[in-house]
Amino acid sequence: MGRVTARVPAVRIELAEDGIRSVSRPDTLTVEEPMEIRVQGQSLSVTMRTPGDDFDLTLGFLVTEGLISGAQDVATLMHCQDEGEDGRPTFNVVDVVLAQGVPLPDTSAERNFYTTSSCGVCGKASIDAVRTSSPYDVKTALPSVDPQVLGRLPDVLRQHQKVFDRTGGLHAAGLFSPEGELLALREDVGRHNAVDKLVGWAAREGRLPLDGAILMVSGRASFELTQKATMAGIPVMAAVSAPSHLAVELAEQAGLTLVGFLRPPRMTVYAGAHRLVAG
Amino acid sequence: MGRVTARVPAVRIELAEDGIRSVSRPDTLTVEEPMEIRVQGQSLSVTMRTPGDDFDLTLGFLVTEGLISGAQDVATLMHCQDEGEDGRPTFNVVDVVLAQGVPLPDTSAERNFYTTSSCGVCGKASIDAVRTSSPYDVKTALPSVDPQVLGRLPDVLRQHQKVFDRTGGLHAAGLFSPEGELLALREDVGRHNAVDKLVGWAAREGRLPLDGAILMVSGRASFELTQKATMAGIPVMAAVSAPSHLAVELAEQAGLTLVGFLRPPRMTVYAGAHRLVAG
Repeated sequence: MGRVTARVPAVRIELAEDGIRSVSRPDTLTVEEPMEIRVQGQSLSVTMRTPGDDFDLTLGFLVTEGLISGAQDVATLMHCQDEGEDGRPTFNVVDVVLAQGVPLPDTSAERNFYTTSSCGVCGKASIDAVRTSSPYDVKTALPSVDPQVLGRLPDVLRQHQKVFDRTGGLHAAGLFSPEGELLALREDVGRHNAVDKLVGWAAREGRLPLDGAILMVSGRASFELTQKATMAGIPVMAAVSAPSHLAVELAEQAGLTLVGFLRPPRMTVYAGAHRLVAG
Repeated sequence: MGRVTARVPAVRIELAEDGIRSVSRPDTLTVEEPMEIRVQGQSLSVTMRTPGDDFDLTLGFLVTEGLISGAQDVATLMHCQDEGEDGRPTFNVVDVVLAQGVPLPDTSAERNFYTTSSCGVCGKASIDAVRTSSPYDVKTALPSVDPQVLGRLPDVLRQHQKVFDRTGGLHAAGLFSPEGELLALREDVGRHNAVDKLVGWAAREGRLPLDGAILMVSGRASFELTQKATMAGIPVMAAVSAPSHLAVELAEQAGLTLVGFLRPPRMTVYAGAHRLVAG
Protein backbone atom coordinates (compact mmCIF):
# COMPACT_ATOMS: atom_id res chain seq x y z
CA MET A 1 0.00 0.00 0.00
CA GLY A 2 1.27 3.48 -0.84
CA ARG A 3 2.15 6.17 1.64
CA VAL A 4 -0.49 8.63 2.88
CA THR A 5 1.96 11.35 3.88
CA ALA A 6 5.46 12.30 2.78
CA ARG A 7 8.20 14.37 4.38
CA VAL A 8 9.64 17.08 2.15
CA PRO A 9 12.28 19.79 2.73
CA ALA A 10 10.72 23.21 3.36
CA VAL A 11 11.74 26.73 4.28
CA ARG A 12 9.53 28.61 6.71
CA ILE A 13 9.63 32.37 6.26
CA GLU A 14 8.38 34.98 8.68
CA LEU A 15 8.09 38.56 7.49
CA ALA A 16 9.28 41.26 9.86
CA GLU A 17 9.61 45.01 9.55
CA ASP A 18 13.39 44.77 9.44
CA GLY A 19 13.55 41.96 6.85
CA ILE A 20 12.69 38.29 6.93
CA ARG A 21 13.50 35.37 9.18
CA SER A 22 13.74 31.95 7.59
CA VAL A 23 14.40 28.48 8.88
CA SER A 24 14.74 25.20 6.96
CA ARG A 25 12.67 22.42 8.46
CA PRO A 26 11.09 19.36 6.81
CA ASP A 27 7.31 19.42 6.49
CA THR A 28 4.75 16.61 6.24
CA LEU A 29 2.50 16.74 3.18
CA THR A 30 -0.37 14.68 1.86
CA VAL A 31 0.56 12.19 -0.84
CA GLU A 32 -1.22 12.62 -4.18
CA GLU A 33 -0.80 9.87 -6.77
CA PRO A 34 -2.80 9.00 -9.88
CA MET A 35 -4.91 5.85 -9.75
CA GLU A 36 -6.31 4.21 -12.83
CA ILE A 37 -9.49 2.15 -12.76
CA ARG A 38 -9.73 -0.53 -15.44
CA VAL A 39 -12.73 -2.73 -16.11
CA GLN A 40 -11.59 -6.05 -17.53
CA GLY A 41 -8.44 -4.44 -18.87
CA GLN A 42 -10.10 -1.36 -20.37
CA SER A 43 -9.17 2.06 -18.94
CA LEU A 44 -12.23 3.72 -17.43
CA SER A 45 -10.87 6.60 -15.34
CA VAL A 46 -7.76 8.12 -13.80
CA THR A 47 -8.12 10.10 -10.60
CA MET A 48 -5.52 11.91 -8.49
CA ARG A 49 -6.02 10.44 -5.03
CA THR A 50 -4.36 9.82 -1.69
CA PRO A 51 -3.33 6.15 -1.61
CA GLY A 52 -5.30 3.82 0.65
CA ASP A 53 -8.73 2.18 0.48
CA ASP A 54 -8.17 1.85 -3.26
CA PHE A 55 -10.63 -1.02 -3.64
CA ASP A 56 -13.28 0.99 -1.79
CA LEU A 57 -12.52 3.98 -4.01
CA THR A 58 -13.00 1.76 -7.06
CA LEU A 59 -16.25 0.21 -5.80
CA GLY A 60 -17.60 3.61 -4.74
CA PHE A 61 -16.72 5.21 -8.06
CA LEU A 62 -18.50 2.44 -9.98
CA VAL A 63 -21.59 2.82 -7.76
CA THR A 64 -21.78 6.62 -7.86
CA GLU A 65 -21.25 6.63 -11.62
CA GLY A 66 -24.17 4.20 -11.94
CA LEU A 67 -22.03 1.45 -13.48
CA ILE A 68 -22.79 -1.16 -10.80
CA SER A 69 -25.48 -1.31 -8.15
CA GLY A 70 -23.38 -2.88 -5.41
CA ALA A 71 -20.50 -5.16 -4.47
CA GLN A 72 -22.43 -8.17 -5.79
CA ASP A 73 -21.87 -6.87 -9.35
CA VAL A 74 -18.11 -7.29 -8.99
CA ALA A 75 -16.39 -10.68 -9.22
CA THR A 76 -12.83 -9.61 -8.38
CA LEU A 77 -10.83 -6.46 -7.64
CA MET A 78 -7.08 -6.58 -7.96
CA HIS A 79 -4.06 -4.34 -8.15
CA CYS A 80 -2.26 -4.76 -11.47
CA GLN A 81 1.33 -5.89 -11.29
CA ASP A 82 2.62 -2.50 -12.37
CA GLU A 83 6.07 -1.54 -11.18
CA GLY A 84 7.78 1.78 -10.52
CA GLU A 85 11.31 2.65 -11.63
CA ASP A 86 12.66 0.98 -8.50
CA GLY A 87 11.08 -2.32 -9.53
CA ARG A 88 8.59 -2.24 -6.65
CA PRO A 89 4.84 -2.44 -7.28
CA THR A 90 3.14 0.97 -7.41
CA PHE A 91 -0.41 -0.16 -6.54
CA ASN A 92 -1.74 2.58 -8.79
CA VAL A 93 -3.87 0.49 -11.16
CA VAL A 94 -6.98 -1.40 -10.03
CA ASP A 95 -8.55 -3.86 -12.43
CA VAL A 96 -12.17 -4.88 -11.96
CA VAL A 97 -13.72 -8.10 -13.22
CA LEU A 98 -17.50 -7.81 -13.25
CA ALA A 99 -19.84 -10.57 -12.10
CA GLN A 100 -21.42 -12.69 -14.81
CA GLY A 101 -24.24 -10.91 -16.60
CA VAL A 102 -23.23 -7.38 -15.55
CA PRO A 103 -22.86 -5.27 -18.71
CA LEU A 104 -19.48 -3.71 -19.47
CA PRO A 105 -19.52 0.08 -19.09
CA ASP A 106 -19.01 2.38 -22.03
CA THR A 107 -15.35 3.44 -21.80
CA SER A 108 -15.52 5.94 -24.65
CA ALA A 109 -14.69 9.59 -24.14
CA GLU A 110 -18.35 10.56 -24.36
CA ARG A 111 -19.33 8.45 -21.35
CA ASN A 112 -19.70 11.31 -18.91
CA PHE A 113 -21.13 13.87 -21.27
CA TYR A 114 -24.62 14.69 -20.13
CA THR A 115 -26.42 15.55 -23.31
CA THR A 116 -29.96 15.74 -24.46
CA SER A 117 -31.34 16.54 -27.84
CA SER A 118 -32.73 19.86 -26.63
CA CYS A 119 -29.56 21.29 -25.15
CA GLY A 120 -26.02 20.22 -25.96
CA VAL A 121 -24.99 20.12 -22.36
CA CYS A 122 -26.64 21.88 -19.43
CA GLY A 123 -27.47 21.69 -15.78
CA LYS A 124 -30.92 20.28 -16.41
CA ALA A 125 -29.51 17.45 -18.53
CA SER A 126 -26.96 16.72 -15.77
CA ILE A 127 -29.73 16.49 -13.19
CA ASP A 128 -31.85 14.30 -15.46
CA ALA A 129 -28.88 11.97 -16.01
CA VAL A 130 -28.48 11.47 -12.26
CA ARG A 131 -32.19 11.03 -11.67
CA THR A 132 -32.60 8.43 -14.40
CA SER A 133 -29.48 6.48 -13.43
CA SER A 134 -29.97 6.40 -9.64
CA PRO A 135 -31.43 3.08 -8.46
CA TYR A 136 -32.66 4.63 -5.20
CA ASP A 137 -35.40 7.07 -4.25
CA VAL A 138 -34.22 9.14 -1.30
CA LYS A 139 -37.48 11.14 -1.03
CA THR A 140 -39.09 8.89 1.56
CA ALA A 141 -35.94 7.85 3.44
CA LEU A 142 -35.16 9.07 6.97
CA PRO A 143 -38.27 11.19 7.67
CA SER A 144 -36.71 13.36 10.37
CA VAL A 145 -33.34 14.53 11.66
CA ASP A 146 -32.78 16.69 14.73
CA PRO A 147 -30.85 19.88 13.81
CA GLN A 148 -29.08 19.58 17.18
CA VAL A 149 -27.57 16.32 15.92
CA LEU A 150 -26.27 18.09 12.79
CA GLY A 151 -24.77 20.74 15.03
CA ARG A 152 -22.54 18.13 16.67
CA LEU A 153 -21.13 16.65 13.44
CA PRO A 154 -18.39 19.21 12.58
CA ASP A 155 -16.62 18.65 15.91
CA VAL A 156 -16.75 14.88 15.54
CA LEU A 157 -15.46 15.04 11.96
CA ARG A 158 -12.62 17.34 12.96
CA GLN A 159 -11.61 15.17 15.93
CA HIS A 160 -11.23 12.14 13.70
CA GLN A 161 -9.31 13.80 10.85
CA LYS A 162 -5.98 12.22 11.67
CA VAL A 163 -4.05 13.06 8.52
CA PHE A 164 -5.38 16.61 8.25
CA ASP A 165 -3.85 17.39 11.63
CA ARG A 166 -0.44 16.56 10.24
CA THR A 167 -0.69 18.06 6.75
CA GLY A 168 -3.56 20.54 6.61
CA GLY A 169 -4.03 19.23 3.11
CA LEU A 170 -6.95 16.85 3.02
CA HIS A 171 -10.66 16.88 2.49
CA ALA A 172 -12.75 14.74 4.81
CA ALA A 173 -16.12 13.07 4.41
CA GLY A 174 -17.99 11.24 7.13
CA LEU A 175 -21.06 9.03 7.35
CA PHE A 176 -23.16 9.43 10.49
CA SER A 177 -26.20 7.71 11.95
CA PRO A 178 -29.35 9.83 12.51
CA GLU A 179 -28.26 10.04 16.17
CA GLY A 180 -24.92 11.57 15.17
CA GLU A 181 -22.76 8.46 15.66
CA LEU A 182 -19.78 8.36 13.26
CA LEU A 183 -20.07 5.28 11.04
CA ALA A 184 -17.03 5.87 8.80
CA LEU A 185 -14.66 8.68 7.83
CA ARG A 186 -12.31 9.01 4.88
CA GLU A 187 -9.74 11.66 3.96
CA ASP A 188 -8.33 12.36 0.51
CA VAL A 189 -6.75 15.14 -1.56
CA GLY A 190 -9.87 14.90 -3.72
CA ARG A 191 -13.26 15.52 -2.12
CA HIS A 192 -15.01 13.25 -4.61
CA ASN A 193 -12.56 10.46 -3.70
CA ALA A 194 -13.30 10.78 0.03
CA VAL A 195 -17.01 10.32 -0.73
CA ASP A 196 -16.38 7.45 -3.16
CA LYS A 197 -14.26 5.68 -0.53
CA LEU A 198 -17.18 5.94 1.92
CA VAL A 199 -19.68 4.65 -0.62
CA GLY A 200 -17.31 1.80 -1.53
CA TRP A 201 -16.99 0.91 2.14
CA ALA A 202 -20.79 0.83 2.41
CA ALA A 203 -21.06 -1.32 -0.72
CA ARG A 204 -18.54 -3.79 0.67
CA GLU A 205 -20.38 -3.91 4.01
CA GLY A 206 -23.73 -4.51 2.30
CA ARG A 207 -25.09 -1.19 3.57
CA LEU A 208 -26.40 0.20 0.28
CA PRO A 209 -28.62 2.16 -0.05
CA LEU A 210 -27.38 4.42 2.73
CA ASP A 211 -30.96 5.49 3.39
CA GLY A 212 -30.45 5.90 7.12
CA ALA A 213 -27.23 7.89 6.94
CA ILE A 214 -26.12 11.51 7.01
CA LEU A 215 -23.15 12.52 4.84
CA MET A 216 -20.98 15.37 6.01
CA VAL A 217 -18.20 16.91 3.90
CA SER A 218 -15.49 19.30 5.02
CA GLY A 219 -15.67 21.79 2.16
CA ARG A 220 -18.25 22.97 -0.33
CA ALA A 221 -21.21 21.07 -1.74
CA SER A 222 -20.71 20.78 -5.48
CA PHE A 223 -23.02 19.15 -8.00
CA GLU A 224 -20.64 16.19 -8.16
CA LEU A 225 -20.78 15.45 -4.42
CA THR A 226 -24.57 15.83 -4.39
CA GLN A 227 -24.73 13.41 -7.32
CA LYS A 228 -22.65 10.87 -5.41
CA ALA A 229 -24.89 11.18 -2.33
CA THR A 230 -27.99 10.67 -4.47
CA MET A 231 -26.52 7.66 -6.27
CA ALA A 232 -25.76 6.02 -2.90
CA GLY A 233 -29.29 6.66 -1.61
CA ILE A 234 -28.14 9.11 1.08
CA PRO A 235 -31.06 11.33 2.26
CA VAL A 236 -29.18 14.09 4.13
CA MET A 237 -25.95 15.86 3.17
CA ALA A 238 -24.26 18.66 5.12
CA ALA A 239 -21.28 20.79 4.14
CA VAL A 240 -19.13 23.22 6.10
CA SER A 241 -19.17 25.71 3.22
CA ALA A 242 -21.42 26.90 0.41
CA PRO A 243 -23.32 24.71 -2.05
CA SER A 244 -23.50 25.59 -5.72
CA HIS A 245 -26.86 26.44 -7.27
CA LEU A 246 -26.80 23.22 -9.31
CA ALA A 247 -26.18 21.12 -6.19
CA VAL A 248 -29.29 22.74 -4.67
CA GLU A 249 -31.36 22.10 -7.80
CA LEU A 250 -30.36 18.43 -7.87
CA ALA A 251 -31.04 18.04 -4.12
CA GLU A 252 -34.44 19.67 -4.53
CA GLN A 253 -35.45 17.40 -7.38
CA ALA A 254 -34.03 14.22 -5.87
CA GLY A 255 -35.55 14.81 -2.42
CA LEU A 256 -32.19 15.14 -0.66
CA THR A 257 -31.89 17.44 2.36
CA LEU A 258 -28.95 19.75 1.67
CA VAL A 259 -27.43 21.81 4.50
CA GLY A 260 -24.66 24.33 3.86
CA PHE A 261 -22.55 26.59 6.06
CA LEU A 262 -22.88 24.06 8.89
CA ARG A 263 -21.11 26.17 11.50
CA PRO A 264 -22.85 25.62 14.82
CA PRO A 265 -24.89 27.19 16.23
CA ARG A 266 -25.86 28.19 12.67
CA MET A 267 -26.61 26.35 9.46
CA THR A 268 -28.54 27.05 6.25
CA VAL A 269 -30.93 24.54 4.70
CA TYR A 270 -31.20 24.74 0.91
CA ALA A 271 -33.40 21.73 0.15
CA GLY A 272 -35.54 19.22 2.02
CA ALA A 273 -36.02 21.41 5.11
CA HIS A 274 -39.05 19.28 6.08
CA ARG A 275 -36.66 16.62 7.49
CA LEU A 276 -35.19 18.97 10.08
CA VAL A 277 -37.46 18.61 13.08
CA ALA A 278 -36.34 19.58 16.58
CA GLY A 279 -36.20 16.45 18.77
CA MET B 1 -23.89 34.85 -21.28
CA GLY B 2 -25.04 32.77 -18.32
CA ARG B 3 -25.58 33.95 -14.79
CA VAL B 4 -22.74 33.94 -12.27
CA THR B 5 -24.97 33.87 -9.20
CA ALA B 6 -28.49 32.64 -8.52
CA ARG B 7 -31.01 33.36 -5.78
CA VAL B 8 -32.48 30.29 -4.10
CA PRO B 9 -34.92 29.84 -1.23
CA ALA B 10 -33.15 28.93 2.03
CA VAL B 11 -33.95 28.36 5.69
CA ARG B 12 -31.49 29.68 8.24
CA ILE B 13 -31.44 27.73 11.47
CA GLU B 14 -29.90 28.79 14.74
CA LEU B 15 -29.51 26.21 17.48
CA ALA B 16 -30.40 27.30 21.01
CA GLU B 17 -30.57 25.47 24.29
CA ASP B 18 -34.35 25.64 24.34
CA GLY B 19 -34.83 24.48 20.72
CA ILE B 20 -34.16 26.04 17.36
CA ARG B 21 -34.96 29.33 15.68
CA SER B 22 -35.47 29.30 11.95
CA VAL B 23 -36.19 31.93 9.35
CA SER B 24 -36.84 31.58 5.62
CA ARG B 25 -34.78 33.97 3.54
CA PRO B 26 -33.45 33.68 -0.02
CA ASP B 27 -29.71 33.18 -0.38
CA THR B 28 -27.32 33.96 -3.23
CA LEU B 29 -25.30 31.03 -4.54
CA THR B 30 -22.64 30.52 -7.17
CA VAL B 31 -23.90 29.15 -10.46
CA GLU B 32 -22.34 25.84 -11.58
CA GLU B 33 -23.09 24.66 -15.10
CA PRO B 34 -21.38 22.10 -17.33
CA MET B 35 -19.42 23.41 -20.29
CA GLU B 36 -18.33 21.22 -23.15
CA ILE B 37 -15.26 21.98 -25.24
CA ARG B 38 -15.35 20.65 -28.79
CA VAL B 39 -12.53 20.79 -31.30
CA GLN B 40 -13.92 20.91 -34.80
CA GLY B 41 -17.08 19.17 -33.64
CA GLN B 42 -15.39 16.45 -31.58
CA SER B 43 -16.04 16.41 -27.82
CA LEU B 44 -12.81 16.96 -25.92
CA SER B 45 -13.86 17.73 -22.35
CA VAL B 46 -16.76 18.65 -20.11
CA THR B 47 -16.08 20.71 -17.01
CA MET B 48 -18.43 22.03 -14.33
CA ARG B 49 -17.76 25.75 -14.29
CA THR B 50 -19.18 29.12 -13.35
CA PRO B 51 -20.37 30.77 -16.58
CA GLY B 52 -18.36 33.68 -17.91
CA ASP B 53 -15.03 34.04 -19.75
CA ASP B 54 -15.88 30.79 -21.53
CA PHE B 55 -13.59 31.51 -24.48
CA ASP B 56 -10.72 32.24 -22.09
CA LEU B 57 -11.50 29.03 -20.23
CA THR B 58 -11.36 27.15 -23.53
CA LEU B 59 -8.10 28.77 -24.66
CA GLY B 60 -6.52 28.26 -21.25
CA PHE B 61 -7.56 24.63 -21.09
CA LEU B 62 -6.07 23.95 -24.52
CA VAL B 63 -2.81 25.66 -23.50
CA THR B 64 -2.45 23.99 -20.10
CA GLU B 65 -3.25 20.58 -21.59
CA GLY B 66 -0.49 21.16 -24.15
CA LEU B 67 -2.87 21.00 -27.13
CA ILE B 68 -2.05 24.48 -28.45
CA SER B 69 0.83 26.83 -27.72
CA GLY B 70 -1.13 30.07 -27.86
CA ALA B 71 -4.05 31.99 -29.33
CA GLN B 72 -2.37 31.94 -32.76
CA ASP B 73 -3.12 28.20 -32.98
CA VAL B 74 -6.86 28.89 -32.93
CA ALA B 75 -8.75 30.15 -35.97
CA THR B 76 -12.18 30.64 -34.38
CA LEU B 77 -13.96 30.13 -31.09
CA MET B 78 -17.72 30.05 -31.04
CA HIS B 79 -20.64 29.10 -28.85
CA CYS B 80 -22.68 26.34 -30.45
CA GLN B 81 -26.28 27.14 -31.15
CA ASP B 82 -27.51 24.84 -28.41
CA GLU B 83 -30.82 25.65 -26.77
CA GLY B 84 -32.30 24.93 -23.37
CA GLU B 85 -35.85 23.75 -22.77
CA ASP B 86 -37.06 27.33 -22.89
CA GLY B 87 -35.71 27.67 -26.43
CA ARG B 88 -33.04 30.16 -25.36
CA PRO B 89 -29.35 29.53 -26.08
CA THR B 90 -27.49 27.91 -23.18
CA PHE B 91 -23.95 29.02 -24.11
CA ASN B 92 -22.66 25.77 -22.64
CA VAL B 93 -20.83 24.38 -25.66
CA VAL B 94 -17.75 26.04 -27.16
CA ASP B 95 -16.46 24.80 -30.50
CA VAL B 96 -12.87 25.46 -31.51
CA VAL B 97 -11.59 25.58 -35.07
CA LEU B 98 -7.81 25.24 -35.10
CA ALA B 99 -5.52 27.30 -37.31
CA GLN B 100 -4.27 25.65 -40.47
CA GLY B 101 -1.51 23.13 -39.80
CA VAL B 102 -2.27 22.70 -36.08
CA PRO B 103 -2.78 18.98 -35.41
CA LEU B 104 -6.13 17.81 -34.06
CA PRO B 105 -5.86 16.58 -30.46
CA ASP B 106 -6.49 12.98 -29.54
CA THR B 107 -10.06 12.94 -28.20
CA SER B 108 -10.01 9.30 -27.10
CA ALA B 109 -10.63 8.30 -23.51
CA GLU B 110 -6.95 7.49 -22.96
CA ARG B 111 -5.84 11.06 -23.74
CA ASN B 112 -5.10 12.07 -20.19
CA PHE B 113 -3.73 8.78 -18.93
CA TYR B 114 -0.12 9.30 -17.96
CA THR B 115 1.48 5.97 -18.65
CA THR B 116 4.97 4.70 -19.19
CA SER B 117 6.16 1.21 -19.94
CA SER B 118 7.77 0.91 -16.51
CA CYS B 119 4.74 1.81 -14.40
CA GLY B 120 1.12 1.66 -15.46
CA VAL B 121 0.34 5.05 -14.00
CA CYS B 122 2.29 6.88 -11.32
CA GLY B 123 3.37 10.28 -10.08
CA LYS B 124 6.69 10.12 -11.88
CA ALA B 125 5.00 9.43 -15.20
CA SER B 126 2.61 12.34 -14.55
CA ILE B 127 5.56 14.67 -13.92
CA ASP B 128 7.39 13.41 -17.00
CA ALA B 129 4.27 14.00 -19.11
CA VAL B 130 4.12 17.64 -18.01
CA ARG B 131 7.83 18.19 -18.47
CA THR B 132 7.92 16.75 -21.97
CA SER B 133 4.78 18.60 -23.11
CA SER B 134 5.56 22.06 -21.68
CA PRO B 135 6.94 24.43 -24.31
CA TYR B 136 8.48 26.69 -21.66
CA ASP B 137 11.40 26.41 -19.26
CA VAL B 138 10.56 28.30 -16.09
CA LYS B 139 13.90 27.56 -14.39
CA THR B 140 15.61 30.77 -15.49
CA ALA B 141 12.56 33.07 -15.43
CA LEU B 142 12.09 35.80 -12.82
CA PRO B 143 15.35 35.43 -10.86
CA SER B 144 14.11 37.05 -7.65
CA VAL B 145 10.90 37.90 -5.81
CA ASP B 146 10.67 39.82 -2.56
CA PRO B 147 8.84 37.77 0.11
CA GLN B 148 7.30 41.04 1.36
CA VAL B 149 5.54 41.30 -2.00
CA LEU B 150 4.11 37.78 -1.59
CA GLY B 151 2.91 38.80 1.85
CA ARG B 152 0.69 41.49 0.32
CA LEU B 153 -1.03 39.22 -2.22
CA PRO B 154 -3.70 37.52 -0.05
CA ASP B 155 -5.23 40.85 0.96
CA VAL B 156 -5.33 42.08 -2.63
CA LEU B 157 -6.86 38.82 -3.87
CA ARG B 158 -9.50 38.90 -1.14
CA GLN B 159 -10.39 42.55 -1.81
CA HIS B 160 -11.08 41.80 -5.44
CA GLN B 161 -13.13 38.63 -4.96
CA LYS B 162 -16.45 40.19 -5.79
CA VAL B 163 -18.56 37.07 -6.17
CA PHE B 164 -17.08 35.29 -3.15
CA ASP B 165 -18.32 38.10 -0.95
CA ARG B 166 -21.85 37.36 -2.02
CA THR B 167 -21.80 33.57 -2.11
CA GLY B 168 -18.82 32.25 -0.13
CA GLY B 169 -18.69 29.60 -2.79
CA LEU B 170 -15.91 30.38 -5.23
CA HIS B 171 -12.26 29.69 -5.70
CA ALA B 172 -10.10 32.58 -6.85
CA ALA B 173 -6.85 32.74 -8.80
CA GLY B 174 -4.88 35.89 -9.48
CA LEU B 175 -1.92 36.85 -11.64
CA PHE B 176 0.42 39.44 -10.16
CA SER B 177 3.47 41.34 -11.35
CA PRO B 178 6.75 40.81 -9.44
CA GLU B 179 5.95 44.10 -7.67
CA GLY B 180 2.61 42.72 -6.44
CA GLU B 181 0.36 44.55 -8.89
CA LEU B 182 -2.79 42.57 -9.74
CA LEU B 183 -2.83 41.80 -13.48
CA ALA B 184 -5.98 39.69 -13.62
CA LEU B 185 -8.27 37.74 -11.29
CA ARG B 186 -10.82 35.03 -12.01
CA GLU B 187 -13.31 33.24 -9.78
CA ASP B 188 -14.93 29.88 -10.43
CA VAL B 189 -16.54 26.93 -8.62
CA GLY B 190 -13.60 24.90 -9.95
CA ARG B 191 -10.07 25.94 -9.00
CA HIS B 192 -8.63 24.53 -12.24
CA ASN B 193 -11.14 26.63 -14.20
CA ALA B 194 -10.11 29.85 -12.45
CA VAL B 195 -6.49 29.17 -13.46
CA ASP B 196 -7.44 28.17 -17.02
CA LYS B 197 -9.43 31.40 -17.38
CA LEU B 198 -6.33 33.37 -16.37
CA VAL B 199 -4.11 31.47 -18.78
CA GLY B 200 -6.66 31.94 -21.56
CA TRP B 201 -6.76 35.67 -20.85
CA ALA B 202 -2.96 35.77 -21.09
CA ALA B 203 -3.02 33.79 -24.36
CA ARG B 204 -5.56 36.19 -25.84
CA GLU B 205 -3.48 39.19 -24.74
CA GLY B 206 -0.29 37.72 -26.25
CA ARG B 207 1.31 37.44 -22.80
CA LEU B 208 2.46 33.80 -22.96
CA PRO B 209 4.73 32.61 -21.50
CA LEU B 210 3.81 34.25 -18.21
CA ASP B 211 7.48 34.21 -17.23
CA GLY B 212 7.28 37.49 -15.30
CA ALA B 213 4.13 36.66 -13.32
CA ILE B 214 3.21 35.27 -9.91
CA LEU B 215 0.15 33.03 -9.67
CA MET B 216 -1.79 33.02 -6.43
CA VAL B 217 -4.64 30.59 -5.68
CA SER B 218 -7.14 30.76 -2.84
CA GLY B 219 -7.04 27.11 -1.77
CA ARG B 220 -4.60 24.25 -1.91
CA ALA B 221 -1.85 23.60 -4.43
CA SER B 222 -2.64 20.33 -6.17
CA PHE B 223 -0.61 18.61 -8.86
CA GLU B 224 -3.13 19.81 -11.45
CA LEU B 225 -2.75 23.50 -10.59
CA THR B 226 1.04 23.20 -10.53
CA GLN B 227 0.87 21.52 -13.93
CA LYS B 228 -1.19 24.41 -15.31
CA ALA B 229 1.28 26.97 -13.93
CA THR B 230 4.18 25.09 -15.51
CA MET B 231 2.44 24.77 -18.87
CA ALA B 232 1.87 28.54 -18.93
CA GLY B 233 5.50 29.30 -18.09
CA ILE B 234 4.68 30.78 -14.68
CA PRO B 235 7.77 30.78 -12.40
CA VAL B 236 6.17 31.44 -8.98
CA MET B 237 2.97 29.99 -7.52
CA ALA B 238 1.58 30.69 -4.05
CA ALA B 239 -1.36 29.07 -2.28
CA VAL B 240 -3.23 29.93 0.89
CA SER B 241 -3.29 26.30 1.97
CA ALA B 242 -1.19 23.15 1.73
CA PRO B 243 0.40 21.72 -1.40
CA SER B 244 0.36 17.99 -2.10
CA HIS B 245 3.63 16.08 -2.22
CA LEU B 246 3.26 15.56 -5.98
CA ALA B 247 2.78 19.29 -6.57
CA VAL B 248 6.07 19.87 -4.72
CA GLU B 249 7.86 17.18 -6.73
CA LEU B 250 6.67 18.68 -10.02
CA ALA B 251 7.61 22.21 -8.91
CA GLU B 252 11.06 21.01 -7.83
CA GLN B 253 11.74 19.31 -11.15
CA ALA B 254 10.27 22.06 -13.31
CA GLY B 255 12.08 24.87 -11.49
CA LEU B 256 8.88 26.50 -10.21
CA THR B 257 8.90 28.32 -6.87
CA LEU B 258 6.04 26.87 -4.82
CA VAL B 259 4.84 28.68 -1.68
CA GLY B 260 2.16 27.19 0.57
CA PHE B 261 0.33 28.35 3.68
CA LEU B 262 0.74 31.96 2.51
CA ARG B 263 -0.74 33.53 5.63
CA PRO B 264 1.20 36.70 6.35
CA PRO B 265 3.43 37.23 8.19
CA ARG B 266 4.16 33.53 7.58
CA MET B 267 4.60 31.33 4.53
CA THR B 268 6.32 28.04 3.72
CA VAL B 269 8.47 27.56 0.63
CA TYR B 270 8.47 24.02 -0.76
CA ALA B 271 10.46 24.45 -3.97
CA GLY B 272 12.62 27.09 -5.65
CA ALA B 273 13.42 28.99 -2.42
CA HIS B 274 16.40 30.60 -4.19
CA ARG B 275 14.01 33.07 -5.85
CA LEU B 276 12.84 34.55 -2.55
CA VAL B 277 15.29 37.31 -1.82
CA ALA B 278 14.48 40.14 0.58
CA GLY B 279 14.34 43.46 -1.34
